Amino acid sequence: MLLTTATWQEVEQRIKSGKTGIIIPIGSHEQHGPTGLIGTDALCPQLIAYEAEKNNDLLIGPTFAVGQAQHHMGFAGSMALRPSTMIATIVDWTNSLVKHGFTHIYWLNGHGGNCATINAAFSETYYPYSFKNEKAPFAHKMMNWWELPNITKLCFEMFPTGHGSHGTASEVALTYWGYPEREVLNQMVLDPKIAPEGPIRDAVDYRNRFADGRISSDPTQASVEKGAKIAEVAVASLVEDFAKFLET
Amino acid sequence: MLLTTATWQEVEQRIKSGKTGIIIPIGSHEQHGPTGLIGTDALCPQLIAYEAEKNNDLLIGPTFAVGQAQHHMGFAGSMALRPSTMIATIVDWTNSLVKHGFTHIYWLNGHGGNCATINAAFSETYYPYSFKNEKAPFAHKMMNWWELPNITKLCFEMFPTGHGSHGTASEVALTYWGYPEREVLNQMVLDPKIAPEGPIRDAVDYRNRFADGRISSDPTQASVEKGAKIAEVAVASLVEDFAKFLET
Amino acid sequence: MLLTTATWQEVEQRIKSGKTGIIIPIGSHEQHGPTGLIGTDALCPQLIAYEAEKNNDLLIGPTFAVGQAQHHMGFAGSMALRPSTMIATIVDWTNSLVKHGFTHIYWLNGHGGNCATINAAFSETYYPYSFKNEKAPFAHKMMNWWELPNITKLCFEMFPTGHGSHGTASEVALTYWGYPEREVLNQMVLDPKIAPEGPIRDAVDYRNRFADGRISSDPTQASVEKGAKIAEVAVASLVEDFAKFLET
Amino acid sequence: MLLTTATWQEVEQRIKSGKTGIIIPIGSHEQHGPTGLIGTDALCPQLIAYEAEKNNDLLIGPTFAVGQAQHHMGFAGSMALRPSTMIATIVDWTNSLVKHGFTHIYWLNGHGGNCATINAAFSETYYPYSFKNEKAPFAHKMMNWWELPNITKLCFEMFPTGHGSHGTASEVALTYWGYPEREVLNQMVLDPKIAPEGPIRDAVDYRNRFADGRISSDPTQASVEKGAKIAEVAVASLVEDFAKFLET
Amino acid sequence: MLLTTATWQEVEQRIKSGKTGIIIPIGSHEQHGPTGLIGTDALCPQLIAYEAEKNNDLLIGPTFAVGQAQHHMGFAGSMALRPSTMIATIVDWTNSLVKHGFTHIYWLNGHGGNCATINAAFSETYYPYSFKNEKAPFAHKMMNWWELPNITKLCFEMFPTGHGSHGTASEVALTYWGYPEREVLNQMVLDPKIAPEGPIRDAVDYRNRFADGRISSDPTQASVEKGAKIAEVAVASLVEDFAKFLET
Amino acid sequence: MLLTTATWQEVEQRIKSGKTGIIIPIGSHEQHGPTGLIGTDALCPQLIAYEAEKNNDLLIGPTFAVGQAQHHMGFAGSMALRPSTMIATIVDWTNSLVKHGFTHIYWLNGHGGNCATINAAFSETYYPYSFKNEKAPFAHKMMNWWELPNITKLCFEMFPTGHGSHGTASEVALTYWGYPEREVLNQMVLDPKIAPEGPIRDAVDYRNRFADGRISSDPTQASVEKGAKIAEVAVASLVEDFAKFLET
Repeated sequence: MLLTTATWQEVEQRIKSGKTGIIIPIGSHEQHGPTGLIGTDALCPQLIAYEAEKNNDLLIGPTFAVGQAQHHMGFAGSMALRPSTMIATIVDWTNSLVKHGFTHIYWLNGHGGNCATINAAFSETYYPYSFKNEKAPFAHKMMNWWELPNITKLCFEMFPTGHGSHGTASEVALTYWGYPEREVLNQMVLDPKIAPEGPIRDAVDYRNRFADGRISSDPTQASVEKGAKIAEVAVASLVEDFAKFLET
Repeated sequence: MLLTTATWQEVEQRIKSGKTGIIIPIGSHEQHGPTGLIGTDALCPQLIAYEAEKNNDLLIGPTFAVGQAQHHMGFAGSMALRPSTMIATIVDWTNSLVKHGFTHIYWLNGHGGNCATINAAFSETYYPYSFKNEKAPFAHKMMNWWELPNITKLCFEMFPTGHGSHGTASEVALTYWGYPEREVLNQMVLDPKIAPEGPIRDAVDYRNRFADGRISSDPTQASVEKGAKIAEVAVASLVEDFAKFLET
Repeated sequence: MLLTTATWQEVEQRIKSGKTGIIIPIGSHEQHGPTGLIGTDALCPQLIAYEAEKNNDLLIGPTFAVGQAQHHMGFAGSMALRPSTMIATIVDWTNSLVKHGFTHIYWLNGHGGNCATINAAFSETYYPYSFKNEKAPFAHKMMNWWELPNITKLCFEMFPTGHGSHGTASEVALTYWGYPEREVLNQMVLDPKIAPEGPIRDAVDYRNRFADGRISSDPTQASVEKGAKIAEVAVASLVEDFAKFLET
Repeated sequence: MLLTTATWQEVEQRIKSGKTGIIIPIGSHEQHGPTGLIGTDALCPQLIAYEAEKNNDLLIGPTFAVGQAQHHMGFAGSMALRPSTMIATIVDWTNSLVKHGFTHIYWLNGHGGNCATINAAFSETYYPYSFKNEKAPFAHKMMNWWELPNITKLCFEMFPTGHGSHGTASEVALTYWGYPEREVLNQMVLDPKIAPEGPIRDAVDYRNRFADGRISSDPTQASVEKGAKIAEVAVASLVEDFAKFLET
Repeated sequence: MLLTTATWQEVEQRIKSGKTGIIIPIGSHEQHGPTGLIGTDALCPQLIAYEAEKNNDLLIGPTFAVGQAQHHMGFAGSMALRPSTMIATIVDWTNSLVKHGFTHIYWLNGHGGNCATINAAFSETYYPYSFKNEKAPFAHKMMNWWELPNITKLCFEMFPTGHGSHGTASEVALTYWGYPEREVLNQMVLDPKIAPEGPIRDAVDYRNRFADGRISSDPTQASVEKGAKIAEVAVASLVEDFAKFLET
Repeated sequence: MLLTTATWQEVEQRIKSGKTGIIIPIGSHEQHGPTGLIGTDALCPQLIAYEAEKNNDLLIGPTFAVGQAQHHMGFAGSMALRPSTMIATIVDWTNSLVKHGFTHIYWLNGHGGNCATINAAFSETYYPYSFKNEKAPFAHKMMNWWELPNITKLCFEMFPTGHGSHGTASEVALTYWGYPEREVLNQMVLDPKIAPEGPIRDAVDYRNRFADGRISSDPTQASVEKGAKIAEVAVASLVEDFAKFLET
């Protein structure tokens, strides 16, 4: 069930039947190099979650589309929330879901730059309960899709060199699988073939270090076919990992 | 062009060629009565904008999916931002777009409850320029999709009674057009057939007044076919209205 | 009774006797063209409310004097709150009144630029109740004084042309009635006689479009006498509209 | 000149002529014992400032009517801003005035409970300049009206016992002078005649300590006549003190 | 007992035995003239409190090390919180202590520039209780160490001229007592010997008025020996004043 | 050089000579099990940094003593900032240091629960530069002291079992080295000897899972001697790691 296309009565019935977990795809809109889509980090968790929902009894919430990406602002189309804004928003999303009785909120994350802020936001949501001496009626879990069981191994088998850490071969492959008309981007010649590495700071510094936006990746290795394979494994891992979370 | 599936170089090129307007679908996730989808208010502007983009040279940004809907919190699945959070978020989205040179930001809105907060947010974004005595390098426009030229007239012709003001026949029709598998919901028998009217306050008061969530509507009149017709007119009106905005 | 000149025991007695409604004049301090007073938007609702209190059993709160007016900052003397500040302030005023048992808070507004922020603030005040699943013990109503029953009709009869939308003939007339020594301002020659129209954005843009501050008005038509007539009708309408509000 | 009843052109002319100081009456709406008015702390500085303006070339801004008064919330009609809200508001008022070229902002304060927050707000307004290494183009001064030169001495001569520190004989006298129809309140018999002393904490604690709201005062000594005398001295002192401030 | 070096079980036992008061040293890191240490205002209350704890049954919390010092930002090494940040922090510290059952929080302050913000923060912490009509389960007291009983007298006996108000002879002496290796700084020749006086505004203005950072002081009079004497008196006064506070 | 005991002229001279890096110890005050000190996480980085400063040309700032520890609030003496407060504070500390010309800010962290919030705060400080298209004039680095080169290896050699993840044997050892009078705590008999593992959520959940506060550790293995060894290695690693940071 997708929250977006469900009715409130369907959601209410689901909760009453004891299915009180929900998966929220969370990502970013930011440059992903010359061959990657701006929405990559929102699309990857959304594609995986929606695919998983097709054959499993899951509830998927709306996608949190814009995240913490200040360092990408040197590249056109990138969007960024201040971390303080993002925390306030995650607090509001959480309180909304908890109001209806959701007990397990699983954030399937697509953007490394979000991790710190998401975890800080979790603490912000627990904070009032901890001060009232009440057990919070919910638990959060954040999972980066690329850290789902078996995914890292698969990616490094598939892309022994140039998988990278931004504009990665695997995330670009996933989006080609979702949007096959964009696979043609992998015909571009990138220079250098594998992008450099370095620390992440502000946007000017970032662009100085990473001229076309990629970090340590050669995403021209991406293809629809490889994306499909990654999706298949990710779906299985998500279903299993989410089930475990519900038991804690 | 959809920002989500574009690359940063494509967006940069577009901006450099002088196309500095963007359309942001903005809506809500909240109950829409027994026959309406929770995502209705996000889906309607998104469906119209994406359809418009197919045959017109437009850039559509990511959808702002969760809005100001505290009054719907009595119904499962509804989500709500505090107005202050929503303002902070719109400020960040605006500053992100302006950073890249966008000059005209057109918010195609799907939720009446958002209007006040969106307009307050516009003032918040203009505020620093007004105090620095600098002309803001951008202009906002908010347009409720149901107030696009010709739409109101069409809706009242299509639904002479029971169009309503929440869970409206027209918005439900639009979503059936987008998600035809959900059209079957219009077989439900609603009681009363046309929902009551009244003021909007907090969530408990809302549920007391509007037992199944609808306000003054009979959305069982909605159908895929009617939704298609509305979409057709809305697309034409959007294209025209956006073009006018670019000239101001 | 004016809250300002009442004692706490008088207010307590009033509340205990079941009179739990209050009227708050809310406005702005901002330019109103060459013939209008900076405090016009605060003075109009205050003048009407204070006049109404003379012969009716009403409680009038302090005037909320400075509002959302960033677009007027290009003209000397204008003052403006950030929308986020204004929301926080209205939240505090509301919580203060609700603490004492007020159930109906009627905001008589004098400034169009305040509307969005006031309505956003209302949602902010209802928000915590909606999330606690408690009925809010109060209701808000915002009424623009110029939209009180019979006022629009009266103004257009009085000023068939050049009533305008900022620095209007009617609001200027009201303030002359309150401060007759200022009526002489209506002797100024304005050029153009009727000011232009246009959208409202930041302060530099505003001043570029509206050179002397007015929008679409010819306020030299204002006089003490016309102001008195407007006040008379507004008082009657306010009393009636407030009484209706108390019954909802 | 009162900002409220001036036009923007009059204010602009005044600033251009080099008169860049302004007086802002700032107070509170809160209980002042059985014989004092809720608006006392806003009225006292406003009455003094308006009186001073009659015979002196001063500019008086709008009155900041509601302040930091959480400790009075146990008494009906009291209103209070959170200190953080009050700081944000004073920041916005300051920035507005500074935008137009005001260089000296003199806050004539009527409420002891405001002092800390006003001073904190001053630091908040200077803060950005200090970090940019720019001299702030303005200076603040806060003056409690009862600490104006000669006032303390006068009060203790007039009220050798029972002047008090809240609901004081002198502030009540000033408001009777402004609103003579309320002088009759001084006929009430208060018990104890002189109210007790003690520390100020939260509202429940306050009401436990100070049963009728007064602290260490016997305000039945107040009269219109005494208020007139206080006003006369305060006006002279204000004019002198403000003139000195303009020279720093 | 120092909270920093205690275990949670030791603190719990102490609270259970009814010892529910705590002393928090609070100060600043900011320039203190050529002979004073940047940490002076944090060190003074910390030194006094730690010394007092040696022979008395007290609990001392962690030192609040950075405060409201925007006006010192023109001198290297100075650090400053925005007043709004400092209020939020004091709120969090307070709520933390109150959660464990502390009823009396005594802030031993070392920096005059903190006073307004600390007092504003106190109101912010009481505010929610005042609006819930609950007695706050705690009380705050702020005490500037130099206003402890007998200290002012002692300082003026010790330093009949040039005690000053920033970079004072007494605070510098106290820090020399704590860090005797720094006493040698009192060999510097300062010009002028006694620093000037004036108002405190932004940082550029401050540096213009007070070229080496001091205000009205000659801190070359400071010595380890004088610091020891001040500490001795301050310790006795603190113990007595804190005991009195616990009884209110 | 310690910022706390330096004068502003010494700091200025240091910066002018090109030494523009600073180390800030950052930690927490929170329970560390029955044998660990509440200040452990603040003390460990402070002890290491101060020790390093003795024989190396370093500048150490004040210790950031209270952090993100909401999950420990079930144990007496624990203190916690909301993540949003902590972000605001780190922003202010950063801006203060940057104002004086510091270019490299190295946060030596002692508390795992701080990591997310510190990293979110870094993004918040870079954010305005990224939107102005200016290179930030500074860089942040956060280093958990236990992740300094060679420390992890050392700890696992020293404590092959029961090193743990909260109230760890190594951090307790470090504090005993700093405060040898507390070593006696290691005589306590803990039950179970090695504490359990589990996820971290709110405070009630935490206490349910971890009855005496420890996670997966047996800190009775800690001793002054082992702490001295850890300190020795940590100091060397810190000096080296900080030097590398200055070159990036």
